[in-house]
Amino acid sequence: MKEARYFYVPNAAMETALPAEEAIHATRVLRLKEGDELFLMDGEGYFYRAEVALATPKKCLYTIKETLRQELAWRGKIYLAIAPTKDMGRIEWMTEKGTEIGFDEITFLDCKFSERKTLRTDRIEKIVISAVKQSRKGWKPVVNSMTPFHSFIEKHSNNGRKYICHCYQEIPRADFFTAITQEESSPTGEDITVLVGPEGDFSIDEVRFALEHGFESVTLGNSRLRTETAGLSAVMMSQLARRM
Amino acid sequence: MKEARYFYVPNAAMETALPAEEAIHATRVLRLKEGDELFLMDGEGYFYRAEVALATPKKCLYTIKETLRQELAWRGKIYLAIAPTKDMGRIEWMTEKGTEIGFDEITFLDCKFSERKTLRTDRIEKIVISAVKQSRKGWKPVVNSMTPFHSFIEKHSNNGRKYICHCYQEIPRADFFTAITQEESSPTGEDITVLVGPEGDFSIDEVRFALEHGFESVTLGNSRLRTETAGLSAVMMSQLARRM
Repeated sequence: MKEARYFYVPNAAMETALPAEEAIHATRVLRLKEGDELFLMDGEGYFYRAEVALATPKKCLYTIKETLRQELAWRGKIYLAIAPTKDMGRIEWMTEKGTEIGFDEITFLDCKFSERKTLRTDRIEKIVISAVKQSRKGWKPVVNSMTPFHSFIEKHSNNGRKYICHCYQEIPRADFFTAITQEESSPTGEDITVLVGPEGDFSIDEVRFALEHGFESVTLGNSRLRTETAGLSAVMMSQLARRM
Repeated sequence: MKEARYFYVPNAAMETALPAEEAIHATRVLRLKEGDELFLMDGEGYFYRAEVALATPKKCLYTIKETLRQELAWRGKIYLAIAPTKDMGRIEWMTEKGTEIGFDEITFLDCKFSERKTLRTDRIEKIVISAVKQSRKGWKPVVNSMTPFHSFIEKHSNNGRKYICHCYQEIPRADFFTAITQEESSPTGEDITVLVGPEGDFSIDEVRFALEHGFESVTLGNSRLRTETAGLSAVMMSQLARRM
């Protein structure tokens, strides 16, 4: 059961061929042949044990032999919304590590003090898929493109509790980890949505706007963290609070 | 109180000049002049508010105006011993993030299945110092050079509890976070030492050797984590368990 034999195939049960890039990897790099075993991950809760039905240099058809339903590893959805750093490398590693540790959805926020106003999510999506395969996640996190802060706040409708991390001492802040572990979960569900701002923090008006829309004011602790470290800490804390 | 005005000066109270590299940064990049305020961090629990006494292109003398004793942010020592990955970038970011989140000491282990057998710690040391300054840590983590697994196990004498993370299902494993949060701390202290193996894991003989020497067998949870993610997770969990 070699690592390389895991392939990400959205809608795998309805398809019969690997996507183009995965097919090239399967047939040219791994040199899989008719009858060889491979594993498909649909990113929606199912793995499939399959066999190569036909392999050409550009094509790889498969036949599913066994459906392997994946178990949920945590309760509720963990949703991170974060202002991306100027340096893409930092955002990329955070997304890779967040996927390994486990979250459900990420949105990049365009905030008042954001250092980065545009972002190509295709590269992020590839990193997520690679981390999903490497860490054998049953579900692929959803990657959303850059969204203006205010419209995110107004439209966000996940169940459960919603938190905004910030550094304004004049606004009372609960401890995030204590909040998600010790408080009762919301009557609408166990989902956690957590917002992390840019290096220069959210503006105080952004924080107030979020609080008016049902977000709770929190701190991740006393450490002075970079944006990407804060994002990963929030994911890690959410995991520890919701893991099964 | 600009970030750039923080300088790492070991033994700052006994010295009167910034170290060469810091002096160049102070006088050439920041163009500090006589009478300008700067902050010194000694990495041993003290910050100092100081003033420039003399600035030349290569030299920066200071006079200490105020001693600022730092508060401990967590109980006991958090000690990570980890087999470095082949890719130095991954080890470097883990060390940077570990410093931001907070740990006391790191040792790189030479294990049976290690992909990397040598390691220059001077670059790691620089990354740690930069992260100490950026995250304003009162204490600089100690960075130790590569150590053979068996001699580390035999010589390690920190107080408190010692853990080895591994993936062998045939050896019973406790959950690391549960162990450090719910069990009583050791009669000898609250220090946490945690060992993380290479991508190919510790050998089963290495695990058994550690268990014979007082280490406890643990898992970091159900996620399949890369070495560097496992190391950072162990530090984050230790922080959550020991933070004040």
